[in-house]
Amino acid sequence: MKIVAAKKILRANDQLAEENRARFKENGAFAVNIVGSPGCGKTTFLESLFRSLDGRVAPAVIEGDIASSIDAERIEKQGVPVVQINTDGACHLDATMVTAAMDGLELDKIELLVIENVGNLVCTAGFDLGENLRIVILSVSEGDDKIAKYPAIFQRSHALVITKTDFLAQSNFNVERVVGDMRRLAPEAEIFQVSALHDQGMDTVADWLVEKCKANGG
Amino acid sequence: MKIVAAKKILRANDQLAEENRARFKENGAFAVNIVGSPGCGKTTFLESLFRSLDGRVAPAVIEGDIASSIDAERIEKQGVPVVQINTDGACHLDATMVTAAMDGLELDKIELLVIENVGNLVCTAGFDLGENLRIVILSVSEGDDKIAKYPAIFQRSHALVITKTDFLAQSNFNVERVVGDMRRLAPEAEIFQVSALHDQGMDTVADWLVEKCKANGG
Repeated sequence: MKIVAAKKILRANDQLAEENRARFKENGAFAVNIVGSPGCGKTTFLESLFRSLDGRVAPAVIEGDIASSIDAERIEKQGVPVVQINTDGACHLDATMVTAAMDGLELDKIELLVIENVGNLVCTAGFDLGENLRIVILSVSEGDDKIAKYPAIFQRSHALVITKTDFLAQSNFNVERVVGDMRRLAPEAEIFQVSALHDQGMDTVADWLVEKCKANGG
Repeated sequence: MKIVAAKKILRANDQLAEENRARFKENGAFAVNIVGSPGCGKTTFLESLFRSLDGRVAPAVIEGDIASSIDAERIEKQGVPVVQINTDGACHLDATMVTAAMDGLELDKIELLVIENVGNLVCTAGFDLGENLRIVILSVSEGDDKIAKYPAIFQRSHALVITKTDFLAQSNFNVERVVGDMRRLAPEAEIFQVSALHDQGMDTVADWLVEKCKANGG
């Protein structure tokens, strides 16, 4: 019974996600869902990404948080349009929340819509938001065993960004292990290594996203 | 309807948790639920804790993971009895899982039973496992805004352990902010600062837990 209910919720979510995806397409907006643990550096990644993008595409952000508008305020400081979703305790965004947030954006003027999900390496994996691309962020300080321990979210992502590489020198994080684990689970996924706080490696990510947006007609 | 169902599940869980708590008490075992983000250093904290305890109390561990037995193997290397729970995708432990895991332990010989929860700063907050104490771990590398962003789990914990303090020097983590946020949400909670990887600050935590176990009759 519980499983059936969960399946129903997921089916309803998938339907709404498809509607979101259609609406993004109609408006020429390329949507990216950013997932990762609390504190892996999702917002710092976005701050650096927008610096690297440097106006090449028109961005906007939907910020998902359980409470507070700390991240939205950080994005706003960069002059990027942002809508805050407070999930009121819920552990992940779903397609309905994104639909509602879209009303706060001028979608036809947006080429890159970034949706920053709640910090959660588990529950965010099962919910399609209608995005075109899912990027999972893993910070060096979290350790190199995370793909083995939380496989679903990595398997369902189109790109892995290894962040906080400035910690590599003083850490036992084995980049080869992580790359190997990711290649096994998601052979097609792009893998990037960055130190977003120091704007290192971010141009490669930005160039890749610009290309995706342009191919989308943005 | 959805909310009612969730309440029912939580009620059933609370009942089972009380049964677990009674069974712990009967056997003189003091149970601690360890929660925190993926990669915050829960297992490293336990490894260092068992070194600091140095046989003063008889420990055992229940390891909760979505997949793999990586953490259980690390605990086993220290000669501490350990039972692995694989949640098969579930984002938190619940009281039933802990009941089942107890069958794999000689509870009457255990004075300190540590339950390492799934890495999740959200979903673990709502589920009482029957523990006597909940410890939340926050690593310096996660940033100092986490209590503001994920308040429930901090509010419901009896102690906060700030880990990876060896990263403080090269980070903008503001300890005062975190301590202040925690004091506001959970004024009674103990607050510790440790670098578990370097066994720093761990004796204070170990002494405090030994006292709790002894007061429990262990």
